Amino acid sequence: MKTLIVHAHPEPQSLSSSLKNVAVSTLTKAGHEVQVSDLYAMRWKSGVDAEDFGAAATHPLDVVHDSGRAYETGTLTADIAAEQAKLLWADTVIFQFPLWWYAMPAILKGWVDRVFTYGFAYGVGEHNATKYGERFGEGTLAGKRAMLSVTIGGRESHYTDRGINGPIDDLLFPIHHGILYHPGMDVLPPFVMYGTTRVSPEDFADAAKLWEQRLLTLEETDPIPFRQQNGGDYELPSLRLREGLEARGSKGFGLHVRG
Amino acid sequence: MKTLIVHAHPEPQSLSSSLKNVAVSTLTKAGHEVQVSDLYAMRWKSGVDAEDFGAAATHPLDVVHDSGRAYETGTLTADIAAEQAKLLWADTVIFQFPLWWYAMPAILKGWVDRVFTYGFAYGVGEHNATKYGERFGEGTLAGKRAMLSVTIGGRESHYTDRGINGPIDDLLFPIHHGILYHPGMDVLPPFVMYGTTRVSPEDFADAAKLWEQRLLTLEETDPIPFRQQNGGDYELPSLRLREGLEARGSKGFGLHVRG
Repeated sequence: MKTLIVHAHPEPQSLSSSLKNVAVSTLTKAGHEVQVSDLYAMRWKSGVDAEDFGAAATHPLDVVHDSGRAYETGTLTADIAAEQAKLLWADTVIFQFPLWWYAMPAILKGWVDRVFTYGFAYGVGEHNATKYGERFGEGTLAGKRAMLSVTIGGRESHYTDRGINGPIDDLLFPIHHGILYHPGMDVLPPFVMYGTTRVSPEDFADAAKLWEQRLLTLEETDPIPFRQQNGGDYELPSLRLREGLEARGSKGFGLHVRG
Repeated sequence: MKTLIVHAHPEPQSLSSSLKNVAVSTLTKAGHEVQVSDLYAMRWKSGVDAEDFGAAATHPLDVVHDSGRAYETGTLTADIAAEQAKLLWADTVIFQFPLWWYAMPAILKGWVDRVFTYGFAYGVGEHNATKYGERFGEGTLAGKRAMLSVTIGGRESHYTDRGINGPIDDLLFPIHHGILYHPGMDVLPPFVMYGTTRVSPEDFADAAKLWEQRLLTLEETDPIPFRQQNGGDYELPSLRLREGLEARGSKGFGLHVRG
């Protein structure tokens, strides 16, 4: 395996950083190649702006199409181009981050916003009355696997079917489906650690064992069975799920997972 | 009204920026006080790190508790303290941003991550076996209103009940409920503009009119009826919604809105 780990925590001794270190050592020992994008250590720039696109930036700035032209013509900044190259190199991408305000830390969102340019991660394939691009199961990153490893301060029950924060699968859906499956990656079930504001050495050892098991069984793990956009399940041009395809009782984001 | 507008787009001539300008002029003409946090213009720093907390930063860094101590002891950086002061000044907060990858732009997430410190936006009130803080309807920002104004490149049908991206209400739930209702704000239904990659001057004029109407009726608009955490609807300590309270057929995030 060739694994890219994208990591987002400011403290090298944090739980997130420790889990990242476990991933590096576990995968390396098992003979896999690993690259790490440690976003805080890299002082990753978070905000998309005209400077990202070099000579392809127009006035006024058109974020979507300027990013596409910059990608096509090779004028993206070196930091963005390097991350795109790592994604193309990898067959597996792991994201290690704390859930802050029910979403990614800003620095990781900034990695997505800047690296996932038009022509690379979206705007791929024909867009017309009978086709709305190659995405959700197709695209530049098709055939690669992605997995989130998330640390959460709150309690697990708060993130269950009836928990006050909403189900963790729904909170992660915009990342799993909207960011990772969108450019074609198969998304494995996440590794989630709860109650992380108080973790004893024993707790960490237990979590590290579970995490190692997930890492060592990555290649045999079935992805979340999201529905391909162009697999016949959606009406065109509305891209609404055809009636009757959903699993019994499913609603909302759950519709887009095969029963 | 005292309105704070938090705005996140790099191009002053963009649709997002134009809608922000409409909000400023509409509210000012109607006699309201307005402050704007134009995050790109302010070169807002997105990444939480030790520098945010001054003398309260520990080694190793403890993001949660160091942010709380920095808030308590007044050692947060001036940019964070200024945004907290604006939030305390405002009775209404509007967020204007493009939906990038089904979420806020990184720079706006960075505003949340850095400004919403422990003791200010979370970690408020007692946390014990019978109470898990004052949040979701209570907290520092209780009594204030919040509203999102979001521009979306894709088509509206893609964001409906059966649309491939998931329902817009579910995509915005982590912001509405998790970020805005969490520290106590009442959240008004969002203003959403779709298909924004191609907007004619006529389209913009129509949208601006609708937006003006929303702005001028802000004070009479009913908020989304989220359930208060401490209003009796949730079991303790699990914080799971009690059985039978949900509206017929609701699931997932929808459980947490009163029928």
